[in-house]
Amino acid sequence: MLVNGYPQRTIWMNEGERDRVWIIDQRHLPHDFVTVSLHSVAEIAVAIKDMWLRGAPLIGAAAAYGMYFACVEAENSANFEANVRRDEAMLRKTRPTAVNLMWALDRQLEVFDHCLANGYSPAQTAEAIRLNAEKICNDDVEICSSIGDFGLSIIEEISRRKNGETVNILTHCNAGWVACIDWGTATSPIYKAHDKGIKVHVWVDETRPRNQGGRITAWELGQHGVPHTIVADNTGGHLMQHGMVDMCIVGTDRVTRQGDVANKIGTYLKALAAHANGVPFYVALPSTTMDWNIGDGVREIPIETRTEAELHEIDGRDVVSGEIRTVRITPPSSPALNYGFDVTPARYVTALITERGICPASEDGLLQLFPERK
Amino acid sequence: MLVNGYPQRTIWMNEGERDRVWIIDQRHLPHDFVTVSLHSVAEIAVAIKDMWLRGAPLIGAAAAYGMYFACVEAENSANFEANVRRDEAMLRKTRPTAVNLMWALDRQLEVFDHCLANGYSPAQTAEAIRLNAEKICNDDVEICSSIGDFGLSIIEEISRRKNGETVNILTHCNAGWVACIDWGTATSPIYKAHDKGIKVHVWVDETRPRNQGGRITAWELGQHGVPHTIVADNTGGHLMQHGMVDMCIVGTDRVTRQGDVANKIGTYLKALAAHANGVPFYVALPSTTMDWNIGDGVREIPIETRTEAELHEIDGRDVVSGEIRTVRITPPSSPALNYGFDVTPARYVTALITERGICPASEDGLLQLFPERK
Repeated sequence: MLVNGYPQRTIWMNEGERDRVWIIDQRHLPHDFVTVSLHSVAEIAVAIKDMWLRGAPLIGAAAAYGMYFACVEAENSANFEANVRRDEAMLRKTRPTAVNLMWALDRQLEVFDHCLANGYSPAQTAEAIRLNAEKICNDDVEICSSIGDFGLSIIEEISRRKNGETVNILTHCNAGWVACIDWGTATSPIYKAHDKGIKVHVWVDETRPRNQGGRITAWELGQHGVPHTIVADNTGGHLMQHGMVDMCIVGTDRVTRQGDVANKIGTYLKALAAHANGVPFYVALPSTTMDWNIGDGVREIPIETRTEAELHEIDGRDVVSGEIRTVRITPPSSPALNYGFDVTPARYVTALITERGICPASEDGLLQLFPERK
Repeated sequence: MLVNGYPQRTIWMNEGERDRVWIIDQRHLPHDFVTVSLHSVAEIAVAIKDMWLRGAPLIGAAAAYGMYFACVEAENSANFEANVRRDEAMLRKTRPTAVNLMWALDRQLEVFDHCLANGYSPAQTAEAIRLNAEKICNDDVEICSSIGDFGLSIIEEISRRKNGETVNILTHCNAGWVACIDWGTATSPIYKAHDKGIKVHVWVDETRPRNQGGRITAWELGQHGVPHTIVADNTGGHLMQHGMVDMCIVGTDRVTRQGDVANKIGTYLKALAAHANGVPFYVALPSTTMDWNIGDGVREIPIETRTEAELHEIDGRDVVSGEIRTVRITPPSSPALNYGFDVTPARYVTALITERGICPASEDGLLQLFPERK
């Protein structure tokens, strides 16, 4: 999507430049837009571990490029295979709970094993791995774009019903292009609609305690020129009660076989409000987010707790000095509890939007789109 | 309630000290506990206007003492009555939407008029006004205490049902003693239960964007020794879904004749979650908060929007320097919308807890407690 008026991805190699991969250093968002180049597997590992980049698909893509640098660095060593495998194991540990990280490294290992088995030279292997990293990125863009096309049809329908008046869309957290390579998941239908000239306006939930909405979603919508307004997470119920939301759309970290949706903490409250006020509630996901092995999400999905520091402290740009500072906002002796996610039962979800199409949030609905899972 | 181990009110005069009234300077909470003395009507006005103190009953009490200083300062002037009336008008403008401010000043004007009509000297008038300010404070304490006694019975019942195990109570915003003179409204039953040895634990909603929960409620519960945990506003749904909340209790800014409840933005979302998960949802209020003139709160209560700066900026204690700083946490060009309140329809409210007793949130229920309103 656009940044400062130019099309941008979250990770890319420049034409003919094989010694570095570029990323947006997201630690500076939303205050500054900074891109940096990474030149080694070690630098990639730091970027993943220290969250210069975030978002499941993007972490996977970065690790995939990490494997390319691992190959290049091992090219002239006596232990090419051993060195690459050592680096792969190191990359795997950078964010131990990131499923896409494992998935991308598995894809790269398949290519690596294929190259070894077929007598590729180290240089040829590195190039094959590089091309596969590029493919992992392009595939993600395709999937997100496809989710966007299906979701677009929903927005178009609401726009028609409103005779072209602005469609108000509420989203929670950041399921945007900055978490992917381009388009995003929940944001993809919004960008498609905006690019097509459909009037849309997005209510951006701040998304405490990490403020991914107020920081990242607001930033990327603003850069692409999509009208939006940041609201406190407390606000969505009031907005829906007063007809100010035409649809909700969120991303997800895991969807169960019966259509229960794990997503950023607070999603469930918005789904309840949508249900109570007749507002459709959509969840956008690549099919890789499906967990076909479990049914009851409320009972079976473990919900991670994160550090309570996220509630006690917050960082931002000092309004006087302009420096980035961290401030404490709670009493020094009060404890906090910080659940990262919650589960929205399928009955509150109007439909799931995947790269294969739109389906009801139910086992029957999902199996119609994914008959191979029957 | 207790602060640093000693009983404390939010506003008081020391025995035999007639030239000053003491308050907690709430601007320093939750980081520091600072008390200051105010010596003139001008200082009282500044304290109200610049929010050294907040909370409807407390603002009223402060203004009542302001009238005392107005009388003292005018005692030796040729225009005693005119000067006091000028100061009264000035006090009335310090927080133009604070209903309790007007109410307290009206009470003081009644006394003032009575004194004038009955030939009191300026000094006698000042003393009558001072005694009435004291009475306004003591009456508020009585009302809050009574709300606490009725609410206590609900907590005791849950405690019995749980065989003495900890009763988990969720609250939103600050309806605590720091907003009143003592006890608070929503917190009063909690303090009564805790003081009686009943095991309670409070989930404190952070309450974005002004963080009255994470700052003030957490502070006052901590000072009094009540076990509590700060959570992001997004968390309550998950907690209720998993049986981690036995009851919700909140304060209110206005309750309609049919029992609809206006309160801090986000209250409605918690009420929806309570309803969906079979958790009782209580609203504590002094009967002065009733608005007998309107029925449908969702349609009839105007919801104020506050400055969007509350979403863009936040202040806290710099974790490095220890200074209080304000930081910007959103992109520089994203707009925000900041509704201060929302309305919870009566059907989601289990009961109202008033100083007269507990009643269903309905016109019939309310009229049983307040038959004079029939």
